[in-house]
Amino acid sequence: MANIYDNAYALEKAIRESDEFQGLQQAYDAVMNDEQAKQMFDNFRNTQVELQQKQMQGEEISEEEVEQARKVVETVQQHEQISKLMEEEQRLNQVINDVSRIITKPLEELYGTDQEGQQ
Amino acid sequence: MANIYDNAYALEKAIRESDEFQGLQQAYDAVMNDEQAKQMFDNFRNTQVELQQKQMQGEEISEEEVEQARKVVETVQQHEQISKLMEEEQRLNQVINDVSRIITKPLEELYGTDQEGQQ
Ligand SMILES: [Ca+2]
Ligand SMILES: [Ca+2]
Repeated sequence: MANIYDNAYALEKAIRESDEFQGLQQAYDAVMNDEQAKQMFDNFRNTQVELQQKQMQGEEISEEEVEQARKVVETVQQHEQISKLMEEEQRLNQVINDVSRIITKPLEELYGTDQEGQQ
Repeated sequence: MANIYDNAYALEKAIRESDEFQGLQQAYDAVMNDEQAKQMFDNFRNTQVELQQKQMQGEEISEEEVEQARKVVETVQQHEQISKLMEEEQRLNQVINDVSRIITKPLEELYGTDQEGQQ
């Protein structure tokens, strides 16, 4: 039991000290310390969250909203610091997804075996 | 980089060898090796998944279905081996949730700090 938590804290430390996390932090700070970039990025995130919420709640998304979202994405993709931040986010996300797959493997094996045998 | 993966595999091993996972495995095997318990448990899980899917797709759930689900839950709760399995699942879930909170802390801090400063 303690062993799980010890290992989880060691992993947290490894993530925090990784090139991926450090790179993300730098890219994030660069955007946050540039008022114009920050506003652009906040606007992008807000637009994304809004559309996701509508989608999840089954609300209709108008053509105008889709077009508006497309423009926002285009704008941030052309911004060097913001696209760097988005790259770094994807890079760390990949690592976190890998980690998640690794540590849930025992559970997957336990339930997966049964599903196979269930037929 | 390698360090993250080394730590993730160490954590996976710790989970696999933990009392929580071993207990879950035993409870699971006990149910799966008892044909009647297995059918009851499968029925319970299928009912749950069905209702969740309907809910997520915004479909209406009839009173009859709610009543049927309630009965299925009642039945499995009275089954010693199945309720043991459900307890063990909750116990391991708690650990996995803790682990997840620990390892996503760096990210939470990174984005959380900004949200505070954003106002
Ligand atoms: Ca089986
Ligand atoms: Ca800030």
